[in-house]
Amino acid sequence: MRDPILLTPGPLTTSLATKTAMLHDWGSWDSSFNALTAKVRQRLVAIIAGDNAGDSAYTCVPLQGSGTFAVEAAIGTLLPPDGKLLCLVNGAYGKRIAQMTAMMKRQVTSIDFGESAPVDPAQVAAALASDPLITHVAIVYCETSTGILNPLADIADVVAAAGKKLIIDAMSAFGALPLFAREMQFDAVIASANKCLEGVPGLGFVVVKTAALEQAQGYAHSLSLDLYQQWRYMEQTGQWRYTPPTHVVAALDAALDQYEAEGGQAARLARYSANCACLIAGLKRLGLESFLPEDIQAPIIVTVKAPAHPNWDFKVFYELTKARGVVLYPGKLTTAETFRVGCIGAISQPEMQLALDVICGALGEMGIPCLSTAATFTNVEEVSQ
Amino acid sequence: MRDPILLTPGPLTTSLATKTAMLHDWGSWDSSFNALTAKVRQRLVAIIAGDNAGDSAYTCVPLQGSGTFAVEAAIGTLLPPDGKLLCLVNGAYGKRIAQMTAMMKRQVTSIDFGESAPVDPAQVAAALASDPLITHVAIVYCETSTGILNPLADIADVVAAAGKKLIIDAMSAFGALPLFAREMQFDAVIASANKCLEGVPGLGFVVVKTAALEQAQGYAHSLSLDLYQQWRYMEQTGQWRYTPPTHVVAALDAALDQYEAEGGQAARLARYSANCACLIAGLKRLGLESFLPEDIQAPIIVTVKAPAHPNWDFKVFYELTKARGVVLYPGKLTTAETFRVGCIGAISQPEMQLALDVICGALGEMGIPCLSTAATFTNVEEVSQ
Repeated sequence: MRDPILLTPGPLTTSLATKTAMLHDWGSWDSSFNALTAKVRQRLVAIIAGDNAGDSAYTCVPLQGSGTFAVEAAIGTLLPPDGKLLCLVNGAYGKRIAQMTAMMKRQVTSIDFGESAPVDPAQVAAALASDPLITHVAIVYCETSTGILNPLADIADVVAAAGKKLIIDAMSAFGALPLFAREMQFDAVIASANKCLEGVPGLGFVVVKTAALEQAQGYAHSLSLDLYQQWRYMEQTGQWRYTPPTHVVAALDAALDQYEAEGGQAARLARYSANCACLIAGLKRLGLESFLPEDIQAPIIVTVKAPAHPNWDFKVFYELTKARGVVLYPGKLTTAETFRVGCIGAISQPEMQLALDVICGALGEMGIPCLSTAATFTNVEEVSQ
Repeated sequence: MRDPILLTPGPLTTSLATKTAMLHDWGSWDSSFNALTAKVRQRLVAIIAGDNAGDSAYTCVPLQGSGTFAVEAAIGTLLPPDGKLLCLVNGAYGKRIAQMTAMMKRQVTSIDFGESAPVDPAQVAAALASDPLITHVAIVYCETSTGILNPLADIADVVAAAGKKLIIDAMSAFGALPLFAREMQFDAVIASANKCLEGVPGLGFVVVKTAALEQAQGYAHSLSLDLYQQWRYMEQTGQWRYTPPTHVVAALDAALDQYEAEGGQAARLARYSANCACLIAGLKRLGLESFLPEDIQAPIIVTVKAPAHPNWDFKVFYELTKARGVVLYPGKLTTAETFRVGCIGAISQPEMQLALDVICGALGEMGIPCLSTAATFTNVEEVSQ
């Protein structure tokens, strides 16, 4: 049976070239694998540091585990035990940062902007002005709970103006949405292999100011999640501190080859944007509405309002679309019945068009009328132009 | 170029069937992947719980990351904040447990038995009798630093007699060395996918008494490493709490198929024991001596004393053996110049014999005389009988 198309926030559909890179075994102590690690680290720095990648202003520290592990490692290592974190929250991932910071018994305060509004720079400025104990600010660039795009550049300006340090959770943005060290100030950006870089899951990484890391010895609350020691060991030996997910590293290296061949961040953003535009236009023609206004919709994942029909049942809908070869994602909103459709992965408009056909077919089988997708074939041309 | 044979403590040589299981993408929310996770968890419990696997006395909690992450999660979750851990140390991995426990600000005390002696049950009994604050004891079953086998059953008896809880780091033992719930008392056993189970690296797991886990809510020092919440979420939803290393899970499932087809623990132990016997006998014929006496040598990894010859240089030796297709491992002893040769992975006596030939050839190229391995071809037959 063919693998389904994964229209999720990750793990997502990867290319066969990425997966076949895992058909080898590497010794974790071996120079061939060390070279692979060094190459991947350098390429990840280059994606955001651009021309600065050559100097050592930023370094990349990969970490075993999921993206959340890397976020926790960054916060636990970079926030001093007597520091205080301001968390900017508009979804589950922002809340999670506040939760992990409290668990490590550090001072943390949050501003919650709800589920459908972007983070507001003016409120951030006011919070920083009113609480001088705050040393660091954490923000989620694209909040996958809804797919909302936060105004990162404006937030970075406000945080820098207040003399605070910014930590960016760019999990579902890194490599696709603009994020350049030459354009904004930040101490650390966290992401994982299996989002817009289209690798397989199993490692996260932090691109971090070397100077910030150098000051962070002894801060971590956890041996495994000590980003400083992970970095020191890697710099000294070229090896990972503990057993690396060798196959996942190799897959990421192959995925980065394809990323560069495609044309890097600009090309990837263009493909995802086209996917997202095709999807939203198609949904509209099916009589389905996306949850977010288009100006705050990141081209990563789209939250769709469930049809207001008595036959609606997400589980039934999910199984019917899956049986047709398309895996969708549940909603994560507390206030509205929704589902989500990802725009990322090794997919382009044919897959998005197929997804629209499948959504229409599944709804039809559920007795929920929707307009035929036939008309969309014409409109795909318009979107592409 | 052919992949080298990895004679290391892991990542190690895996079968092609294990690696090709990674040529698919799974949705982490999807029922197919949930079923895969459930099957792997059940099989891991069955390996040590045997007939008890059907009841819920033990459960398996997999965790993203390396084996060390799983050890830290087990200690951080099972040791109450007011508990005290006794660490039994005879190598780097035992020391690491003491270090991580101190980092999470829990009480910890160690007995260090040096690098070449097994843990002594009488000393453990005395320590437990003299310090009533101790609630938990941690031991490394096979200490990979040297390859030493600790007398686990005797230690488990002493710990149980004192009314304390035992946490076993069975990283390089699980699935090969005997470890059965019907034969000894313990609260938790920790291991990883990429050792004797012959999966690929990227996840660890803890097989733990369900009753012990039920009491552990709120103990963890880390969100990502909270084994209680990882378990609760998995029980409630069938899903991993954070993005799972989907491909690594699939590879482990394929590796478990092969494990069962081979004949389970007894067959795997027999193969590794034959590998180890072939290796030690062959080394002896080459004039090389293994570091440990045979009665405390686990059939997992063998520490070999470096030749007492002025031309000896591990890095040169390593590159020469690697160029011949065999990856060896450096020694980890502080007191003696050694190297290590693993006996585990998807390898059997032909690979061990090849390794002996290669070791002899490399030493020859370094101008270090060793006896020809020609004679060993006869002796392999003896070992097999």
